[in-house]
Amino acid sequence: MSDRPLSSRVPAGAAVRTRILEIGAVSEEREDQVAAEEPLEIRVVAGKGEGRTAHSIAVTMRTPGHDFELAAGFLFSEGVFPNANKVWRMARCEDADPETADNVVEAHLVPDADFDPERFSRLVYTSSSCGICGKASIERLGDVCPVAPSDELLLDVDIVRSLPEVMRESQALFTRTGGLHAAGLFSASGQLRLLREDVGRHNAVDKVIGASFLAEELPLSDSVLLVSGRASFELVQKALMAGIPALLAVGAPSSLAVATAREFGMTLIGFLKPGGFNVYSGEERLIAP
Amino acid sequence: MSDRPLSSRVPAGAAVRTRILEIGAVSEEREDQVAAEEPLEIRVVAGKGEGRTAHSIAVTMRTPGHDFELAAGFLFSEGVFPNANKVWRMARCEDADPETADNVVEAHLVPDADFDPERFSRLVYTSSSCGICGKASIERLGDVCPVAPSDELLLDVDIVRSLPEVMRESQALFTRTGGLHAAGLFSASGQLRLLREDVGRHNAVDKVIGASFLAEELPLSDSVLLVSGRASFELVQKALMAGIPALLAVGAPSSLAVATAREFGMTLIGFLKPGGFNVYSGEERLIAP
Repeated sequence: MSDRPLSSRVPAGAAVRTRILEIGAVSEEREDQVAAEEPLEIRVVAGKGEGRTAHSIAVTMRTPGHDFELAAGFLFSEGVFPNANKVWRMARCEDADPETADNVVEAHLVPDADFDPERFSRLVYTSSSCGICGKASIERLGDVCPVAPSDELLLDVDIVRSLPEVMRESQALFTRTGGLHAAGLFSASGQLRLLREDVGRHNAVDKVIGASFLAEELPLSDSVLLVSGRASFELVQKALMAGIPALLAVGAPSSLAVATAREFGMTLIGFLKPGGFNVYSGEERLIAP
Repeated sequence: MSDRPLSSRVPAGAAVRTRILEIGAVSEEREDQVAAEEPLEIRVVAGKGEGRTAHSIAVTMRTPGHDFELAAGFLFSEGVFPNANKVWRMARCEDADPETADNVVEAHLVPDADFDPERFSRLVYTSSSCGICGKASIERLGDVCPVAPSDELLLDVDIVRSLPEVMRESQALFTRTGGLHAAGLFSASGQLRLLREDVGRHNAVDKVIGASFLAEELPLSDSVLLVSGRASFELVQKALMAGIPALLAVGAPSSLAVATAREFGMTLIGFLKPGGFNVYSGEERLIAP
């Protein structure tokens, strides 16, 4: 089996260039690349003649490229269709806005294929419109986000560098299993307020925010959130909803995480290590030692 | 803010003990711990008097513990409910089977709270029954899985050790961004057949399986799948659906990933490095150099 391109269009670039501030032995502004992240809506088109209709099955945040393969693999491994014979063709959404057309893929089934939309209509979170894009995801967040990130929180560069070690020392489960993501809520002075671990990084963040929600302590305007992995759009979204002004990640951020943090004026830090880190957004909250 | 227990029950153990085979300078069978992974169904109970009903909003695979916080954080950050005043109490599902009751959490809203179930009924994949557990997830997979993993594939220990380096060398995007998960499909002789990268590890695996699906090359009985991160239930599920007999992970597996691989007779390897690896299931496919 060779790595042939199949029918999937490869986008111009799955990495996105952006200016960052690198804090290290020497601090400098430079150009860097971040992994592209954009929503993809996956639809199934089924039925015969006039009765042929499109059913939205899922929206996944993905790196553009090999989208037909992604949609087919998702639908197959979730059991939505059992074999390739039933798929007539993979296509982009014809009605979509040109700007968003790359973010919708339709699996057209052969006319006699069995497909029960009721069984799958609840599969995953979906948008109601055909067009979908990173910009729309950011706008939708603006509609529901209860507060803007506070301007008052200031972060000492040396305290920021020290936080991963503080969190790691408190990670009981990781030490035993090597298999847990962690989310830690810290004060600006570096005190660990709350730590949660989970096999899912979104779950670890939900546990931290949920604890604060149930204790009626939202918004968390005087806290920063540290995550053990990468910073995706979804994690930036969760932090913004909770009013957290700064998200720090041990791993890399995605393009949509960076764009969202900039849009809302949140501080976003990635590749956080004792020796330094990269600032993607909101450097005005940092104070040098 | 202190880390008080709130109302969430902490489970007996969020790590699970299991026997493993460690392959290294010396190979030995020993006991190890893996991070617990179980499904959690999140429900909202809303309405007044006789009209009070439960609405299933989401099922997430999570590490048990702080479940009320997880459910509250998820519902809040997805915009399902706006403030803590509207939540009357968090509770376990009363009608659930005792065996599965720990895996269902209900957020009971105050009787006058606004809640439009139509708006959220499509939020995420949900099961139709109240009871949900790892065992049921495995059984459901058994119902839809088209083929059993082949017994014929054999894996040379030295070839297995070499695969992460082969994959890393081919990862163009990771090198530029440091932010991509990868999934690589290899032959038993160590040849890289297909590599895909994505910000989401499930997406990278879907792209690999979807490419094979569209090329009508499923099942992949003579291939092994290598993933750059951890091995969750969902990744084992996707590999099984595609008929892949061995899943290799650079990171740690979860408890449900191990249980599922054992149930289906799939080879599951974790912590794969040039110096060695751990075998959690299906060691009969390994041949010493």
